Amino acid sequence: MSQRYKHAGDAPAALKRAAQLADEIGLLSHSSSLLGWDQETYMPEAALDERAQQQALLARLMHERLAGDEMARCLDELGASPARPFGTQQLSWADQRLLRSLGRSHRRAACLNADFVSQLSVAASLGQANWIKARHANDFAHFAPYLSKLIELKRQEASLVGGGAEAYDALLDEYEPGMGAAEIATVFSKMREQLVPLVAAIGQKSSSPAYAFDALAGKNFLQAGQEQLGRAILAAMHYPTDSGRLDVSAHPFTTTVGRKDVRITTRYDQKNFFAGISSIVHEAGHALYELGVHPDLHLMLSNGCSLGIHESQSRLWENMVGRSRAFWGHFLPQLQNFLPETAGLSLQEIYQAANRVKASFIRVDADEVTYSLHVMLRFELELGIMRGELEVKDLSEAWREKSRQLLGIVPPTDSQGVLQDIHWSMGSIGYFPTYALGNLYAAMFYQQASYDIPDLEAQVGQGQFLPLKNWLCSKIHQPGAAVLPSELVQEVCGVRLDHQPFMNYLNRKYTQLYDL
Amino acid sequence: MSQRYKHAGDAPAALKRAAQLADEIGLLSHSSSLLGWDQETYMPEAALDERAQQQALLARLMHERLAGDEMARCLDELGASPARPFGTQQLSWADQRLLRSLGRSHRRAACLNADFVSQLSVAASLGQANWIKARHANDFAHFAPYLSKLIELKRQEASLVGGGAEAYDALLDEYEPGMGAAEIATVFSKMREQLVPLVAAIGQKSSSPAYAFDALAGKNFLQAGQEQLGRAILAAMHYPTDSGRLDVSAHPFTTTVGRKDVRITTRYDQKNFFAGISSIVHEAGHALYELGVHPDLHLMLSNGCSLGIHESQSRLWENMVGRSRAFWGHFLPQLQNFLPETAGLSLQEIYQAANRVKASFIRVDADEVTYSLHVMLRFELELGIMRGELEVKDLSEAWREKSRQLLGIVPPTDSQGVLQDIHWSMGSIGYFPTYALGNLYAAMFYQQASYDIPDLEAQVGQGQFLPLKNWLCSKIHQPGAAVLPSELVQEVCGVRLDHQPFMNYLNRKYTQLYDL
Repeated sequence: MSQRYKHAGDAPAALKRAAQLADEIGLLSHSSSLLGWDQETYMPEAALDERAQQQALLARLMHERLAGDEMARCLDELGASPARPFGTQQLSWADQRLLRSLGRSHRRAACLNADFVSQLSVAASLGQANWIKARHANDFAHFAPYLSKLIELKRQEASLVGGGAEAYDALLDEYEPGMGAAEIATVFSKMREQLVPLVAAIGQKSSSPAYAFDALAGKNFLQAGQEQLGRAILAAMHYPTDSGRLDVSAHPFTTTVGRKDVRITTRYDQKNFFAGISSIVHEAGHALYELGVHPDLHLMLSNGCSLGIHESQSRLWENMVGRSRAFWGHFLPQLQNFLPETAGLSLQEIYQAANRVKASFIRVDADEVTYSLHVMLRFELELGIMRGELEVKDLSEAWREKSRQLLGIVPPTDSQGVLQDIHWSMGSIGYFPTYALGNLYAAMFYQQASYDIPDLEAQVGQGQFLPLKNWLCSKIHQPGAAVLPSELVQEVCGVRLDHQPFMNYLNRKYTQLYDL
Repeated sequence: MSQRYKHAGDAPAALKRAAQLADEIGLLSHSSSLLGWDQETYMPEAALDERAQQQALLARLMHERLAGDEMARCLDELGASPARPFGTQQLSWADQRLLRSLGRSHRRAACLNADFVSQLSVAASLGQANWIKARHANDFAHFAPYLSKLIELKRQEASLVGGGAEAYDALLDEYEPGMGAAEIATVFSKMREQLVPLVAAIGQKSSSPAYAFDALAGKNFLQAGQEQLGRAILAAMHYPTDSGRLDVSAHPFTTTVGRKDVRITTRYDQKNFFAGISSIVHEAGHALYELGVHPDLHLMLSNGCSLGIHESQSRLWENMVGRSRAFWGHFLPQLQNFLPETAGLSLQEIYQAANRVKASFIRVDADEVTYSLHVMLRFELELGIMRGELEVKDLSEAWREKSRQLLGIVPPTDSQGVLQDIHWSMGSIGYFPTYALGNLYAAMFYQQASYDIPDLEAQVGQGQFLPLKNWLCSKIHQPGAAVLPSELVQEVCGVRLDHQPFMNYLNRKYTQLYDL
């Protein structure tokens, strides 16, 4: 099995050259990741302007290698056309997959000339800067023209990249290869039918979870204790200290600086220790994925196969493991040791507090039940915009209307509504759905893991995470980006994307927790 | 005056293109610096192998831009030959200097083909790895064949680069442009005549400095206190927190990650707080140089003009300021506050302890009087090797003999002798003299500063370092690498390199300290 990840030594010259260029892209990408990590953690502030120039140069060097004539000639020679992705030669599995991946990425990159990429980059910089201003001033009208420009360019991008009748699909494909808006709409619609009544049912109960959460709300949790608990959890997850780091940043993230150097960050909220701990578990889930890719695989395939699959790994650890009763049963003594303010609460109360469900305005603070509704809201608006059925000037009102329909609440300000996320301001359209797909994939994988590891919950309760980690590694992490998400799900679970495992998980957990 | 640093907007196309390539080299070099900084500070250890590949790729991209055909064509077109370095066009001062610098660097880089550079890189890797082994095992014979290979390649390099009868000069030129072995030999010989008797005279006195040093030797200084003191000194030196950082590494260093991002490191010795504090002041001297280059100057000229001039800035702050009685007079209250173990010692005792002179085996631990003798020893051996008058197999014995002549002591082991420095194992021949040149330049500059700022010592005694910093910036830092060291010294001091200011400084200070 592990032989499949090796590339053949006697590959044709064109493949060797393409693989060399791909390796250079990989090394440049990891170098760029270090520049980014440093910017968010330790960089002195006056360094910002030149850092942007350094990043722009590395981005150009990567684009030249991917989209340039030399790569085009290699791929042509190898017959890697969209219609015949592997050519006719006898290539190893890993080499075939490299070619397929390069073919896809090259085609996309080659469609966008340097001038267009530069226009998009400028519009994204202006978008971000003015989004910050607009959010601060709670003034969507200030942001609207910048967003309109970005939407116009993203429509152009979709048209340049091409690929089908639905412009949105061309954008989505960058984040979730092979996925289409139609499939997402179908699965979201089925989820919604079950999620909206579930949230409503929970809302009608004023039961203990909310009480336990409130009991913790008045306390103050020192950062040092939160970090110690976080590091104890990372050790139990077998996140390796010789290949990773935990630091602090304004927004938690994971970044791959090398095959054996995948770093995570978190932020600590002294009022709510669940926030920092959840972020640590979430980001470690991402990091284990990147670290778990088979070391023989080409460097450029040594990352996640899609944002949705990536999010499945973070969500699985954060929610299915990290918000389970078994998990907190194991960590209760350490929780009480590192954060003595929790000493008065029982395991059941901690479990309840970790799983309070309440419709709220801000996506990143949402619980696991309402979270997907936040995503559906954004997906429907994005699709409306890309199809020309909705105008940017009407987004603010449309947001409020969707929020009322999906979450039953209406944000009182745009800063808590349409201006809350950074994504659109960077030109990231088609990104949001992958967050909800991550929940669905996570539930599918966790269900499969429960079949394959019958005493999984008992192991979690004993802090034995290695069997789960190894299962995830061998089933999901090892092939990295050599597979497409649909292939991976089929291979691991034997079925297509399905919302029901996730709904079953939520129904089972919250029916019991809220006594529905 | 500041107009001179601007490049002209209407420059010829070939100059614009050469400047673009130079800017890319600058950005890649700064990115590479971040990779190096990270490796020495925060990088998880398993990341090492790929980090080496990332660095090798960036090095190749820089070499391609500097040595490649496109740069050659631009320089040809601009007439930047060694004989006519600026061409005939009307170029701004900054553009002329960029061309001169590019011409020099291009010519050198173009002489060395990729295969040779790769051979040298492999030999240096093997050299370093086996130097570590040999030093650990105290076995020079193990290291000798690797060093012989490196010497052979360095002879080839000198021959490929060419430039004169003395092979050593071709190597020296990389570190100290325009300097020759003959000039160094002359100035070293004159220094030696005065230094050897000075060290001997001090050795015959068993006076108070040694006593005060010993009184501190038994104590334990907490790292936190040392760091607080170091940061207080950095603030007084106006090392800017928005453009720099202080971190911990195994060996102290300064690195430029961006025009406005120059970072320093130190290490703390709990038994000897002078070591860590001296390193902080030393490295901050380097950092202020890099940060002081005029912001209008081309990115590729935005660094020091030679290793010797760079070392003058670190040595001036470390020794002439940081080991002065006035300096410790100002910082005594903070010293006693942050390191309460020093409370029993008077200012005179602290001053004495900071300036203990004692011949020792290890260069990096040497005081400022004996330090240059360590450098002369290495210079004479390097010159003998490069001239073929000394063989590698005889280096160990030659080291002991030179040590006896210069320092009056003989190292009992090779680890404390010929194996103590990393430089030769990396193929750095011609580097050592720049350390001693730094002392000479420092004394020349400090003497000139004392003329221009009559109350300099009184200001230092009040912790007022800004006038000195501003003087160094306007006289030495602003032109960066747009000047050659000899031009700079001539411009600032009106004379050529001279050892006497340094000897005057030592004689005055130590005659008084040791009551000679």
